[in-house]
Amino acid sequence: MAETFPSPAEVVGGRIGAQLRFLVEVDQLKAVTRANTLVDGSRKETSAEHSWHVALMALVLCELAEPPLDATKVVAMLLVHDIVEVDAGDTDPFDDEARATKQEKEEAAADRIFALLPADQAAIFRAWWDEFEAAETPEAQAARAFDRFDGLVGNHAAAGNGAWAEPGRTVSSVRRRNEAVADWLPGLAPVVAALIDDAEARGRLRPG
Amino acid sequence: MAETFPSPAEVVGGRIGAQLRFLVEVDQLKAVTRANTLVDGSRKETSAEHSWHVALMALVLCELAEPPLDATKVVAMLLVHDIVEVDAGDTDPFDDEARATKQEKEEAAADRIFALLPADQAAIFRAWWDEFEAAETPEAQAARAFDRFDGLVGNHAAAGNGAWAEPGRTVSSVRRRNEAVADWLPGLAPVVAALIDDAEARGRLRPG
Repeated sequence: MAETFPSPAEVVGGRIGAQLRFLVEVDQLKAVTRANTLVDGSRKETSAEHSWHVALMALVLCELAEPPLDATKVVAMLLVHDIVEVDAGDTDPFDDEARATKQEKEEAAADRIFALLPADQAAIFRAWWDEFEAAETPEAQAARAFDRFDGLVGNHAAAGNGAWAEPGRTVSSVRRRNEAVADWLPGLAPVVAALIDDAEARGRLRPG
Repeated sequence: MAETFPSPAEVVGGRIGAQLRFLVEVDQLKAVTRANTLVDGSRKETSAEHSWHVALMALVLCELAEPPLDATKVVAMLLVHDIVEVDAGDTDPFDDEARATKQEKEEAAADRIFALLPADQAAIFRAWWDEFEAAETPEAQAARAFDRFDGLVGNHAAAGNGAWAEPGRTVSSVRRRNEAVADWLPGLAPVVAALIDDAEARGRLRPG
């Protein structure tokens, strides 16, 4: 058992102490693994790695939105969208049983984790997360589209077919899950179709 | 040897194909490891994980800058700042020999990797990286301050003292490396001093 020392928040205190407590707490997102693999197929990616990649994707692809949207908010939402997994873990989107309890667990996690921040910032960060979850604004819809599209691109690019090798992935279930991407960000619709059609034609996705 | 398939960029082509080529290429940042560990001490973190955490740190701590700065640009710079490590690897900041060839390797990497994007976006993304490297604007200085401060907080929080257990880390070398943080973002100066003083007092950093 390693010796325990006062945390940065305990050493510093005050407003910045609260901010450091939040930042140290969410470091745990680096230990949450997802179904998707790295492109090289060597291992599953972490939710922290995915959060970086999808925020970068938003910087590159926000131009597809018509009319233009607030890209800053899209990036902010993507940087916080998975933080609740520190408590709730990553839920496999193709596991219906796990999905049934996902919302409740994630709401409880959001209540706890965002409240580590000073109250004014807790409200701002929680509002980004709530907006993402509600999927109603153009920014939230674009962010959610990128979140799924990042998985689709990653699996298509991955040696060993990434998460497509996991249970529940078939041509039709992957197509169904990505219908929302086309609804949320129509500029991605032809790309989504092309990647899934290609995977189907090459037998990279199970039939059915 | 796994079967090779056409990449997303080859399937899609055109402008979005170039964008996907860039996004798939930089996925390799998930395989670059740093000297710093996760807070739980279980393993070294990847540069992708660090890039996420430090971009999130900027959202939380940009308020420390006086006068206020363009937080959007700080976040964008931090999302791209380590991309060159895909070719150049992570350079240990406490390894003087490795640091001598760092700039040349990273410039060559930036030339190659940002050029994967469509030319107009390549110019924008490269300009963020150049601005970060030059450390002259308030946004670049804040971004660089967060980049180092993220390491300091992570090591202070880490079970097993994170990268402080690696060669070259002493009270004075860590203090020297973090002097720039206080210059770049004076609001962090007292926090940097408090964390290093605490680590020194508890013997968590080697003397000297």
